[in-house]
Amino acid sequence: MMNFQGSHILSVSQFDRESVSRILEVAQAMIPYASRQKRCHVLEGAILNNLFFEPSTRTRISFGTAFQLLGGFVHETVGQESSSLSKGESLFDTARVISGYSDVIAMRHPDMHSVAEFSTGSTVPVINGGDGANEHPTQALLDLFTIQAEMSRFGKGIDNLNIVLMGDLKHGRTVHSLSRLLSLYKNLTITLLSPKELQMPAYIVDVLTNAGHKVNITETMAGNLESDVVYQTRIQQERFASIAEAEQYRGHFSLNKSVYEQYCKDHTVIMHPLPRDARPEANELDIDLNDNNNLAIFRQAQNGVLVRMALFALTLGVDEKLTQYEKEVTWFTNK
Amino acid sequence: MMNFQGSHILSVSQFDRESVSRILEVAQAMIPYASRQKRCHVLEGAILNNLFFEPSTRTRISFGTAFQLLGGFVHETVGQESSSLSKGESLFDTARVISGYSDVIAMRHPDMHSVAEFSTGSTVPVINGGDGANEHPTQALLDLFTIQAEMSRFGKGIDNLNIVLMGDLKHGRTVHSLSRLLSLYKNLTITLLSPKELQMPAYIVDVLTNAGHKVNITETMAGNLESDVVYQTRIQQERFASIAEAEQYRGHFSLNKSVYEQYCKDHTVIMHPLPRDARPEANELDIDLNDNNNLAIFRQAQNGVLVRMALFALTLGVDEKLTQYEKEVTWFTNK
Amino acid sequence: MMNFQGSHILSVSQFDRESVSRILEVAQAMIPYASRQKRCHVLEGAILNNLFFEPSTRTRISFGTAFQLLGGFVHETVGQESSSLSKGESLFDTARVISGYSDVIAMRHPDMHSVAEFSTGSTVPVINGGDGANEHPTQALLDLFTIQAEMSRFGKGIDNLNIVLMGDLKHGRTVHSLSRLLSLYKNLTITLLSPKELQMPAYIVDVLTNAGHKVNITETMAGNLESDVVYQTRIQQERFASIAEAEQYRGHFSLNKSVYEQYCKDHTVIMHPLPRDARPEANELDIDLNDNNNLAIFRQAQNGVLVRMALFALTLGVDEKLTQYEKEVTWFTNK
Repeated sequence: MMNFQGSHILSVSQFDRESVSRILEVAQAMIPYASRQKRCHVLEGAILNNLFFEPSTRTRISFGTAFQLLGGFVHETVGQESSSLSKGESLFDTARVISGYSDVIAMRHPDMHSVAEFSTGSTVPVINGGDGANEHPTQALLDLFTIQAEMSRFGKGIDNLNIVLMGDLKHGRTVHSLSRLLSLYKNLTITLLSPKELQMPAYIVDVLTNAGHKVNITETMAGNLESDVVYQTRIQQERFASIAEAEQYRGHFSLNKSVYEQYCKDHTVIMHPLPRDARPEANELDIDLNDNNNLAIFRQAQNGVLVRMALFALTLGVDEKLTQYEKEVTWFTNK
Repeated sequence: MMNFQGSHILSVSQFDRESVSRILEVAQAMIPYASRQKRCHVLEGAILNNLFFEPSTRTRISFGTAFQLLGGFVHETVGQESSSLSKGESLFDTARVISGYSDVIAMRHPDMHSVAEFSTGSTVPVINGGDGANEHPTQALLDLFTIQAEMSRFGKGIDNLNIVLMGDLKHGRTVHSLSRLLSLYKNLTITLLSPKELQMPAYIVDVLTNAGHKVNITETMAGNLESDVVYQTRIQQERFASIAEAEQYRGHFSLNKSVYEQYCKDHTVIMHPLPRDARPEANELDIDLNDNNNLAIFRQAQNGVLVRMALFALTLGVDEKLTQYEKEVTWFTNK
Repeated sequence: MMNFQGSHILSVSQFDRESVSRILEVAQAMIPYASRQKRCHVLEGAILNNLFFEPSTRTRISFGTAFQLLGGFVHETVGQESSSLSKGESLFDTARVISGYSDVIAMRHPDMHSVAEFSTGSTVPVINGGDGANEHPTQALLDLFTIQAEMSRFGKGIDNLNIVLMGDLKHGRTVHSLSRLLSLYKNLTITLLSPKELQMPAYIVDVLTNAGHKVNITETMAGNLESDVVYQTRIQQERFASIAEAEQYRGHFSLNKSVYEQYCKDHTVIMHPLPRDARPEANELDIDLNDNNNLAIFRQAQNGVLVRMALFALTLGVDEKLTQYEKEVTWFTNK
């Protein structure tokens, strides 16, 4: 198992199964605090610098919330124009200076590998919140946590599951990183359902087959959605050569109530990294599934807070101290 | 009286007189904390998401300050470009996700009724910080609180007052919302003083007359400013067909020292929602009144913190617990 | 000595030597908290409004960190478009309103003297975080603190030092403000090394000579860098009439390993206000000095937190109470 304390979290590739299990275990222990049954102030006085050089409401707020739920202060930077990077400063210098002000840093940046480069200058742990098309490890971890949490409702673990990844499998870093994590588990059946032009890259398929999983590549929903989990990602219209071509695929790679009832099992859990596009021209997960209890997308988003709390606790070495720093919740909450 | 705990605050129309009285009463109880005589940490560990999809320094800071003065953490989002809304996400989805991270949400958005739509997805109380031309209920409440606080200096309440609303009464949501709140009180004399083109909409005049108030519509300051309160709003130059037309009205609907001395009473209190335009071409409340003790505009702005503290305390159910969570102020303050 | 409590910090010109000594002394006392050996929560519940009407990542985060390390809450405003100033509000009105929400304000603004104008409306202490080409007093104080801290390694104080200021001495407010502070000390030798076009203004040279210091104005590094400190500032390419002219100066006013070994003393300390431009076309402090222990630039940036903590403690009157409000650090830190 990796030594978390003082470490950077840059890529899912740095984890073995034991490390991932520990992260999910600590995330589980965060539920009472995230649901406001109790408060934990173990990080009171600590400072997170939340550096979002590429804007992202959801991920930014989720990191900040996670840190505040452990009692810490959050400091934020959004966008690049207000940063010294725009004056030609190196990522190393920026990291050396800002880490001097921080106890831990979460960072998103539009350039691939920029967060790793930044981490070489940092004197405190850096957590990758997404570096362009490269990685988004906390998303993959929250997805895995969600699979585990949802399956526990049916008495199942992650091993032996039947999982469908559907949509744009070529460009989505989310499904790439999740696939790497799934390669740490045993005996999975993975269905890769996408238009031929947007298929999962061969090197990711190799990761899955090398792990001993059964991989099924298809373009057809019929007969292929009888799974434990369907993980849908968005197909952006701009990925196609023309609107006509995009139209041709409409409804072939996205769930709605009718598709679900026709092709899925009763217990099939629906996941999506969000945001989903609600505009009529979009080809996304339909809102007519909002009442389906197996629609896990909002629980999935909330699990992001748990996983990020776990990573802060582990990298700052307080994961064993949580219960010593509890306080009552004084206000009304309906979580 | 409405049940505040867990409720959204979307519109002044949701209040009866008893509810408004309770808000003003709790706001009054916040004075020792806002003036730094004592500290209150009843919301320590709670999280406010302050979502300003339309920027506003004053209102944003006021909401954030109010929450911090009760001991809570604030998380902010400013502007739309950094939000998932720009990727086509529905307000419902955004609300469902962000409310999962929050204990309460304050929100401003440029579109009418957007905050109400957002609230349908939220699992925690949402407080409307302004939704376009529609409503700005906390402004109306702080205006009402200010009238009550200023009048108490003269041994008066809100009933039976003589109040002038002056300036652009057509477009100002501020005076519309305030009028609705004033309709809960008794026996007021309301003078509506504006250029004919910028008169109060008929449906708001109806709200006032249906409440039994005496309504006086005029274009002339002379003889019409002998009131308890003059509430001035800004007339934006752009509202007129031409600069020439705007020039024609210059000085006819705005206070300065000379107008005040000529037409107002000695005790007439001056209010304004701020900001006031200090540029020479503007037609606003003159700075030569800055030394007049009846100029309530800065006290009015500070009262916004009290009213927002009250709404947080009420919606989170801690309004009865404030005195149990007091601490000393350790630093020098001259408030 | 000035009375700090409740005072604005607008300019280095407001300090005598005793006041500066007190600031440096309190900054020194902040080291245990900034290095996370202990926590100090003396400002728990206090609110800093960090108003950066001109963006600046480094200075903004440094002010915010300093306040949080004393236990206080930080509220931030970045950019002008989201401010009431863009609606024509006067700095006086903005200050009167925002100070009503604050215990102290840090402010950066692109216009000269704007922070002083703002302070006339403020009811709480205002700290100048840079007002255009005018002043940046906290930078000068952290530079002075760094000189003192670095020299103490060699058993020296500030009096009697040999200091080189190098680069663009005409436009850099940093070296102007530092020169004013150095004029409070005794018997310095100051070398001003710059292209003729970018020489130190005569009125600053006068400040130094009037203080009794020996001033040496030159364009040559050879023979002029055998000093205790070399303080390098950036020469922006745009300052020259043409790229050709800029090229002509390349490498004549900037340090690298070879220049250091050839011209400096073994113990010469290297300072720079940061950020330094890492782009190849820039003419800046070379990264081949990064391993030199006398490169003080990152310690210098961290000292900014100490100095700003000191100013908050002094202006809020808690500088004598720090040790009464200490707590343990619960998390791992490698500072």
